[in-house]
Amino acid sequence: MVTTTVTVRFYETDMMGIVHHSNHIRWFEMGRVEYLKAAGVTLEELLAKDYVFPIMSVECKYISAIRYGDTIRIETTMESMSRAQLTFSYKLIRESDGQLMAVGSSKGAIADRETGRITRVDKDIYEIIKRFAEENAL
Amino acid sequence: MVTTTVTVRFYETDMMGIVHHSNHIRWFEMGRVEYLKAAGVTLEELLAKDYVFPIMSVECKYISAIRYGDTIRIETTMESMSRAQLTFSYKLIRESDGQLMAVGSSKGAIADRETGRITRVDKDIYEIIKRFAEENAL
Amino acid sequence: MVTTTVTVRFYETDMMGIVHHSNHIRWFEMGRVEYLKAAGVTLEELLAKDYVFPIMSVECKYISAIRYGDTIRIETTMESMSRAQLTFSYKLIRESDGQLMAVGSSKGAIADRETGRITRVDKDIYEIIKRFAEENAL
Amino acid sequence: MVTTTVTVRFYETDMMGIVHHSNHIRWFEMGRVEYLKAAGVTLEELLAKDYVFPIMSVECKYISAIRYGDTIRIETTMESMSRAQLTFSYKLIRESDGQLMAVGSSKGAIADRETGRITRVDKDIYEIIKRFAEENAL
Repeated sequence: MVTTTVTVRFYETDMMGIVHHSNHIRWFEMGRVEYLKAAGVTLEELLAKDYVFPIMSVECKYISAIRYGDTIRIETTMESMSRAQLTFSYKLIRESDGQLMAVGSSKGAIADRETGRITRVDKDIYEIIKRFAEENAL
Repeated sequence: MVTTTVTVRFYETDMMGIVHHSNHIRWFEMGRVEYLKAAGVTLEELLAKDYVFPIMSVECKYISAIRYGDTIRIETTMESMSRAQLTFSYKLIRESDGQLMAVGSSKGAIADRETGRITRVDKDIYEIIKRFAEENAL
Repeated sequence: MVTTTVTVRFYETDMMGIVHHSNHIRWFEMGRVEYLKAAGVTLEELLAKDYVFPIMSVECKYISAIRYGDTIRIETTMESMSRAQLTFSYKLIRESDGQLMAVGSSKGAIADRETGRITRVDKDIYEIIKRFAEENAL
Repeated sequence: MVTTTVTVRFYETDMMGIVHHSNHIRWFEMGRVEYLKAAGVTLEELLAKDYVFPIMSVECKYISAIRYGDTIRIETTMESMSRAQLTFSYKLIRESDGQLMAVGSSKGAIADRETGRITRVDKDIYEIIKRFAEENAL
């Protein structure tokens, strides 16, 4: 598991006075970016090698409304991984009291930038992420 | 089913050259707003009656990358409804060739603005939406 | 002048109950995209020719708060143009009563995608836009 | 002057491979939120007292394209202040090399939430911010 925190930005709220539900999906992305960074792989690097990483599916269950002023801890865990696909799960937790605000998951693929086709990531990048995931399974 | 169309906005793209996957979730919202509007109920009206309508869950499967220049038809269907909960499903279809780009669903609740608690919507609003949903089931 | 309309999207509101002020800047972009499209030039085309079009400056004066439910007419006028630079001005007008909600302007450059340096756009593209601007000065 | 930093989020990029120019306007907001927080005043507090703080004008000059991977320091200075109006200026600086990426300013008003009319903020809130601004003029 890798954790990172976000503080709600004003523009992320909507006229119901809560964080708009699309931002949770964006925070999940921040969670997996931090996960990969912690493993030693940055998106810049993947893009420079002409990989893109389209999302195949995403889901989110909203448990409690997140409000302006909240600081949210994103806990990201890798659920499974192959050289062509990564599945992450996420928990959004309010820092002030540990309340679980939302849970979700996403499945992403590795594709070739030019062709758009699903491909397999370099073996060494795969091994780096895989080792990290094993060491940080909890 | 109710349909509405969106043309991709430039700011909705990301550096992979495709529409960022969080926008699909936002377009789903536009789909259900149009659905309710077609039924004769606007969000302004619901908010004026001190209802809020938090999302309980959302999911999206991404089938093909949406690009700048694409016009997307959002097809919204109501899957089920009670006075406290509405479930919608969505299809995102590229207008130019009918290609299915993404499918998804969302479950939303009706809550009281002050207390934040789940509540039941006015019987007459419920009946209006229900009748519309029955008449537009396909 | 070229006009296009937008209907406020729910996610564009913030917890003050109005459209967040960053969206006006995004709507200006939609205005100039429509302007260029009306002239016969699409961004896809410019990108395909390895042009990028970075914004050099933008400004907006907010006259009246835009709310959910409002339909806004964007009126876009080209103020000046060279082969390396375009200046547009914008008016945001509420459709229901003609109220002027915001005015603004932006200056954009034409740059080479690879080098990032300011360049001059193809003479024929320049002529197309210039002729259109002259014919649509009001 | 008050400083805060942001790391570019992936969704903030666009298909030109740079941060979309509307995000600078959003980062300015983060800058003034941090400024007021450093002074001891939070937006939550202002909203709880039924103040809203509509933006009257904003402008930004873009000097260099901000890219994914960049960390940006936001330097926020108060330029002038009355009980009804606050003017801030902003510098966006790339942390890695001190390069100035953008400069801008915004003018905001204090209004009554109910009526939407410009009002004057509580004298004690005014004094708190004013004192802080004097002590942090540079």
